[in-house]
Amino acid sequence: MRIAESVKSLTAYVPGEQPKSGRVVKLNTNENPYPPSPKCAAVLKSFDLDRLRRYPDPNFSELAAEIARINSTTPEHVFVGNGSDEILALSARAFVENNESIGSLDPSYSLYKTLAAIRDVKWLGAGGIEKKAGGGELQKRLAQLAASNVSLFLWTNPNAPTGEFAEPASISAFAKKFPGVVIVDEAYADFARGNCMSLATAPRNKNVIVMRTFSKSYSLAGLRVGYCVGPKDLVAALYKVKDSYNVDAVAQAVALAALKDRAYHRRTIAKVLKTRKAFSKELARRGWNVIPSESNFVFAKPPGISASAKTIFGRLKSRGVFVRYFPGPLTGDRLRITIGTDEQMKALLAALDIQS
Amino acid sequence: MRIAESVKSLTAYVPGEQPKSGRVVKLNTNENPYPPSPKCAAVLKSFDLDRLRRYPDPNFSELAAEIARINSTTPEHVFVGNGSDEILALSARAFVENNESIGSLDPSYSLYKTLAAIRDVKWLGAGGIEKKAGGGELQKRLAQLAASNVSLFLWTNPNAPTGEFAEPASISAFAKKFPGVVIVDEAYADFARGNCMSLATAPRNKNVIVMRTFSKSYSLAGLRVGYCVGPKDLVAALYKVKDSYNVDAVAQAVALAALKDRAYHRRTIAKVLKTRKAFSKELARRGWNVIPSESNFVFAKPPGISASAKTIFGRLKSRGVFVRYFPGPLTGDRLRITIGTDEQMKALLAALDIQS
Repeated sequence: MRIAESVKSLTAYVPGEQPKSGRVVKLNTNENPYPPSPKCAAVLKSFDLDRLRRYPDPNFSELAAEIARINSTTPEHVFVGNGSDEILALSARAFVENNESIGSLDPSYSLYKTLAAIRDVKWLGAGGIEKKAGGGELQKRLAQLAASNVSLFLWTNPNAPTGEFAEPASISAFAKKFPGVVIVDEAYADFARGNCMSLATAPRNKNVIVMRTFSKSYSLAGLRVGYCVGPKDLVAALYKVKDSYNVDAVAQAVALAALKDRAYHRRTIAKVLKTRKAFSKELARRGWNVIPSESNFVFAKPPGISASAKTIFGRLKSRGVFVRYFPGPLTGDRLRITIGTDEQMKALLAALDIQS
Repeated sequence: MRIAESVKSLTAYVPGEQPKSGRVVKLNTNENPYPPSPKCAAVLKSFDLDRLRRYPDPNFSELAAEIARINSTTPEHVFVGNGSDEILALSARAFVENNESIGSLDPSYSLYKTLAAIRDVKWLGAGGIEKKAGGGELQKRLAQLAASNVSLFLWTNPNAPTGEFAEPASISAFAKKFPGVVIVDEAYADFARGNCMSLATAPRNKNVIVMRTFSKSYSLAGLRVGYCVGPKDLVAALYKVKDSYNVDAVAQAVALAALKDRAYHRRTIAKVLKTRKAFSKELARRGWNVIPSESNFVFAKPPGISASAKTIFGRLKSRGVFVRYFPGPLTGDRLRITIGTDEQMKALLAALDIQS
């Protein structure tokens, strides 16, 4: 045996394309179009080389303390990862036995299926496009999952690629019935009208973890920092299975600077929301079906008379505009378009207008 | 089920203490006493914020190309991790089935046992202090491991905490008989008289991976970058099980700068070797038993008439000098002392001289 059987049959997750040329309009990986806080640049410029030479704080104490403070909890409830992706992988180890399964909404973040495959357990999906997360069918399917062997449920909220927002009350109701751990992946929550953090910090909470990332609203996708908040015993389990020094010293310092610049964060989000509103309206005016988005992207279907989503995807790409297309019965009739700057959205609309 | 059974019983790996005060003499975690190349500082100072905003290159192409170049191989043979620790964790996933085991020398890097526990498989050790790795007893024990259920063997060379160097020929002979994957953990190889890289890059190599880190000779422990070189199919398996973006953009750029400054790297290593020689000689002069070290630390036993290693460890700590003490029958009579600057070694010797 050289390579594990489950790995041999594994297909690696394919992240959105990162074109080398800086001249493209890149609206395909939900990056923030605005730079991170100038405070982040300042940290890099004056970084103490002695902190590179020495191992980083294995418990990211300063960063965890600030995360705890802004979320009205204490550091024992906080865990930080090398991106949210690492927290997901560690959770698949800590909260799932070899004979259990991982569940998520469907469609949702396509990494979840890969995650289950890497962990060599089954993945089960619940839901469907444009079924509001409070709807009867989703609740029925979730109840089935709870009764099945699913021990970890990943609830992306707002969901991707749909942009739909589920009410915290409905997630709370599900978690109360669910025997395993529920991770609410709030990568996009800063762009939504609400979030589930109060479920995670509630004293009686036993199984809800809320996960956030610095990759979207903080414009730090290049840095790889995510965090989560949850019950002490679950957080302690994540500490046990992590690498000794999973978050590097630069990442800890830069993320902390971003977190502390609250005013800059608010301004960036406000700009994205303004552009989202105008762009959604314009797409609708052109006959696209746009799912009302609570995120930094829209998931939209071209008008019936228009070309297929797949065709438009290819056409835009050939014109230097990158959006995301997910093939398949649940998602293949739509495009996921990241909200960029007003100029980028104008460039996309102009590229749509070119007669093919 | 909330927390997996194997995780409940797990004891987290305890890394060497990172004292908050900068005034201590820190010789306990094998950090390099010299700062990283000035080129690293330059990269941080001028880092393009747009690279923070965007996701990093998931395949760390530039860094992998340079690693391939200096090791006379091609990038398909190279993998980069968030520290060597991540490469070890991914290897435990990719090269070990649920019913297989992980083996290593014993004593060796104490993380390996934790790694096996996190992966929920058995760990088996081979060897013993001061038995040269070519010796008959070790070879016998290794043959037993090869015949058992061990599918991944982690051979630290030079070994830690002993500092002993095993001849590449003896590792090669073992690998030829071993049915699984052999990772030669060469964290300290830059301080040794040889290394196993030619085993990893040999065209007929099927199962040897050589792993290096930027934490020691490159003075970048705070950054978390490790890499490995091995057969294409094994490297491809590591790619399959990694997080999408496991090495951040800053780490990729800074590590690349360090790698390119070959002259600085050589100078730093030469300084450490010079200090190691003088310090080992002085310890021996004082009656300590010093295992000849091929690493940036020495593993040494105080003279018979002196206090025990544990007592001296505590005494040094109370005097602001941190070294590493590993309890247990194989290691408990010695101290592992990192090679720092000449001044730091003098401070340690002075602290030893104080009458208690």
